[in-house]
Amino acid sequence: MTPFRLDERLEKDSLEIGALGLCHIRLINDSRWPWLVLAPMRANAVEIHGLAWSDQITLAQETALAASILKELTGCEKINSAALGNIVRQLHVHVVARTAGDPNWPGPVWGFGQRAPYAPQALTLLRERLQSAFFPHFS
Amino acid sequence: MTPFRLDERLEKDSLEIGALGLCHIRLINDSRWPWLVLAPMRANAVEIHGLAWSDQITLAQETALAASILKELTGCEKINSAALGNIVRQLHVHVVARTAGDPNWPGPVWGFGQRAPYAPQALTLLRERLQSAFFPHFS
Repeated sequence: MTPFRLDERLEKDSLEIGALGLCHIRLINDSRWPWLVLAPMRANAVEIHGLAWSDQITLAQETALAASILKELTGCEKINSAALGNIVRQLHVHVVARTAGDPNWPGPVWGFGQRAPYAPQALTLLRERLQSAFFPHFS
Repeated sequence: MTPFRLDERLEKDSLEIGALGLCHIRLINDSRWPWLVLAPMRANAVEIHGLAWSDQITLAQETALAASILKELTGCEKINSAALGNIVRQLHVHVVARTAGDPNWPGPVWGFGQRAPYAPQALTLLRERLQSAFFPHFS
C-alpha cells in the first residue's frame, strides 16, 4: 500500500489545523474568504465515489462538522462546499464561508483574482479559534 | 410541515430525470458540460449539514450514484461536485462531468459564459440514457 502524503500544492497554499479520523483539516491562507480544505488520508484517492463507502460516510460527517464550525465562527450567509480537483487531483473537499458582497459573490471562489494572505496575527488567531472548535478537548 | 416544492429557477433551467429516495435528479440544459443537479425533497433545506443525519447519508449515496453514472456515461476526466446555493437557496448539489479543454477548464462551471442548450434530439437521447442508468428496471 502506498502511504498517504499530502499533495505539495495543497500543503503550500494552506496551514494545518489538525487531523480528524479521516481527513487533514487545512486553512487556506486567503483572507478574502474563510476557507477550509479537507483531505482524506487515503493514498491515490481522486473521486469521492471512489472511496470505500465507510470512508464516504466519514467524509460526509467531517465535512458537515467543518461546515457547522465555519458557519458558527464566521456568521456567514452560505456555506459553499465542493470537490473539484481539476488542478490538484488528490481528493480534497473545499468548505468556504460566503457572505453577500464578498469577492466574486454570488459567483464561485475558485480561480477568482489573487490570493490575499492573512496578516500574521489574524492568521494565528483564526487558526487557534478553529483548533479550539475542532479539538475542544485539546485546547 | 411545509410540503416540498422544487425551486422555480431550478425547474426552469433543468429537466427531470426522475426521483430517487431523497432527491430529484435533474439535467441542466447546457450542452457545454454534462451536468446533473440533485435536489433533496425536504422543504426549507438550505445547508447539507442542516439535514437530518440519515438524510445526509442518503444524499452522499445518491450523489455518489450520480457521479458514477455521469463518469461512466461520459468518460469524463473529473467529476466536480458542489453545494453552493448563493443564488438559489433551496439545497441542491451539482454533479458535473469535466474534461481537459472543456469551457473554462480547469476553472469552475458556475457563472461562466452563456448557456448552450442541447439540440432537441441530443437532449432526448441523453435524458433516455440517464434514465436507463438511474432506473434500470423501468427501462
